[in-house]
Amino acid sequence: MTGSVGIVETQFVTLVTQDDPLVLESGKTLAPIDVAYETYGTLNGDRSNAVLVLHALSGDAHAAGQHTPDDPKPGWWDEMIGPGRAIDTDQYYIVCANFLGGCKGTTGPSSINPKIGAPYGMTFPVITIGDTVEVQRLLSTHLGIDSWLSMTGGSMGGMQAMEWAIRYPGHVRSIIPIATTSRLSAQGIAFNAVGRNAITSDPNWSHGDYYGGATPDQGLAVARMIGHITYLSETSMHEKFGRRLQETDAYGFEMDAVDFQVESYLNYKGQAFVERFDANTYLYITKAMDYFDLASQHGGTLTKAFENIVSKVLVISFSSDWLFPSWQSNHIVRALIAGGKDVSYLEIESGAGHDAFLLEAERLGKAISHFLKNV
Amino acid sequence: MTGSVGIVETQFVTLVTQDDPLVLESGKTLAPIDVAYETYGTLNGDRSNAVLVLHALSGDAHAAGQHTPDDPKPGWWDEMIGPGRAIDTDQYYIVCANFLGGCKGTTGPSSINPKIGAPYGMTFPVITIGDTVEVQRLLSTHLGIDSWLSMTGGSMGGMQAMEWAIRYPGHVRSIIPIATTSRLSAQGIAFNAVGRNAITSDPNWSHGDYYGGATPDQGLAVARMIGHITYLSETSMHEKFGRRLQETDAYGFEMDAVDFQVESYLNYKGQAFVERFDANTYLYITKAMDYFDLASQHGGTLTKAFENIVSKVLVISFSSDWLFPSWQSNHIVRALIAGGKDVSYLEIESGAGHDAFLLEAERLGKAISHFLKNV
Repeated sequence: MTGSVGIVETQFVTLVTQDDPLVLESGKTLAPIDVAYETYGTLNGDRSNAVLVLHALSGDAHAAGQHTPDDPKPGWWDEMIGPGRAIDTDQYYIVCANFLGGCKGTTGPSSINPKIGAPYGMTFPVITIGDTVEVQRLLSTHLGIDSWLSMTGGSMGGMQAMEWAIRYPGHVRSIIPIATTSRLSAQGIAFNAVGRNAITSDPNWSHGDYYGGATPDQGLAVARMIGHITYLSETSMHEKFGRRLQETDAYGFEMDAVDFQVESYLNYKGQAFVERFDANTYLYITKAMDYFDLASQHGGTLTKAFENIVSKVLVISFSSDWLFPSWQSNHIVRALIAGGKDVSYLEIESGAGHDAFLLEAERLGKAISHFLKNV
Repeated sequence: MTGSVGIVETQFVTLVTQDDPLVLESGKTLAPIDVAYETYGTLNGDRSNAVLVLHALSGDAHAAGQHTPDDPKPGWWDEMIGPGRAIDTDQYYIVCANFLGGCKGTTGPSSINPKIGAPYGMTFPVITIGDTVEVQRLLSTHLGIDSWLSMTGGSMGGMQAMEWAIRYPGHVRSIIPIATTSRLSAQGIAFNAVGRNAITSDPNWSHGDYYGGATPDQGLAVARMIGHITYLSETSMHEKFGRRLQETDAYGFEMDAVDFQVESYLNYKGQAFVERFDANTYLYITKAMDYFDLASQHGGTLTKAFENIVSKVLVISFSSDWLFPSWQSNHIVRALIAGGKDVSYLEIESGAGHDAFLLEAERLGKAISHFLKNV
């Protein structure tokens, strides 16, 4: 029998205080830093069964279970995490934390800047994937976990897993980067840049200083719509929507009309997102993704970057993912092989595009569960 | 020796007057309709050497030559049109007209609505590719051209060429649809919808009633940026920009900083576009593209749609075009073959993406010039 982890609670901890600020990759400092996280399962006696689940751009610490019995939606990776599920809470102690710069409980641009007694907005420092890993490292210490059995996550989650294995080789026994890349392509940067542009073009953005007033919802919605196009594949869009019309069997011939189902879907996704996400976090986190470049940040080549890795690695990509296409995963795998690392690679045939890491729970789950048993 | 057509002038003609309005596909009427067009070369005695060049979303009637001797830029297809060039002005009489709904001299949403004595804005009727073909048909009559030797254009230009061959089979001896499709995919509609959303989200848009005041430049720029990503291929973006930084050799670690060259390029393209294009035209023309669906509009299947075509057809696509990919051209070709039509197909290997129809002048020119000689 597999099941849900049930009712869970997000926990909060202050990991960095103003007495001892965190020095960021930019050279700037940040304090205090609070982190929101959830845990599922039980840490075993020798503290060897901990798995860190790392969320993507729009995720949060709530990976599994429900916050209340009538919660309409479980955590974002609920299908993967629970008793008897792929990341089995009967065997593993699972941790998921909101990333640095986030808007779901971890310090980010919507948090209070103690120097000005108001939300940071654009006074929040530019952060990197490395910086968010450093904060997770502090969380590990807080939780008494010196060595992680595994770390996994899709998209930006996979970036963090690789960064961890490079920075703390003795403390990560395995990583499973999914649907990710060692660096964004020009096209990936371009999509992020246009999304940011949509936000900063919204007059309500007010150079980031909109807290307590009207928020840049229109800009954030457009950014999210652009994102959604890149998360789906051409095939999955065709299958989901094709050219089907919305509530009618003929064109509306009105400029106000939302004729096609795909338009209605994007509008809905855009509007739903603004109710749960902070526009400034979108700016900072996409920038952190743009900056992520393992080769240039660690030694010049990817093989060099992976030089100190001792983790066992399982790289997973999806055949129809065109945002982080399989050739980018292949690039990671080849560099690991060239360095003599213990790496396996699985490309899952799926029409679901980049979003497959959230949707292909069954096949993804089998691969992850099998891999975890063999670490 | 090949050369430029030299100094050219845009001409204007009123093709529809208020006494006799054009009935649109929507059932609504439109009058007056003015058309801006240019001609190059000389119509021969039996009026048999006329070639209609059809422009794409951001083009206009100015396809070749210069408007003034110190014009910094020639027409949008100048490399293709001129004495000795692929569409040879020594042999052919070439016509190019701004499409209906345009903002470059042909009646569109920025024109005066005689009923209100002010620009149409959103009172402009929704128009279709078919409607713009009807206006071109009136232009043909005005110019005394009963039968066109050929019609060609990329992207939306190719849609118009196919629509012409279907509507007026006896009057089009050949067509060359380039980098086009018989209908947009869900992904194509999605990109257009997000672009429109960016425009209508701009407070300056004022429900389309912005003429004489502040214009929705930010929204139109974002729409154009999205467009540019789809016009280039991942490969061409990689080759043009990669992850190269803008005027620096290290990240700026500032949210205001434009770090990557690709960001700077998109910003520039967005800004340049708003200086020469009307946001409402963008809304109406992308809607016309979304509505274009040869199969559903003409008989239910593509083969049925092409049933009456007597034109010789050359379909051209580009291998890296992911907006209107080769499989969509293939789909057109297969339907024409199934109907026993005279069709040739050329897929040009190019890394330039959808934009290749503007860039691959040499190879495209050879194919077109050869085809025209054999019509």
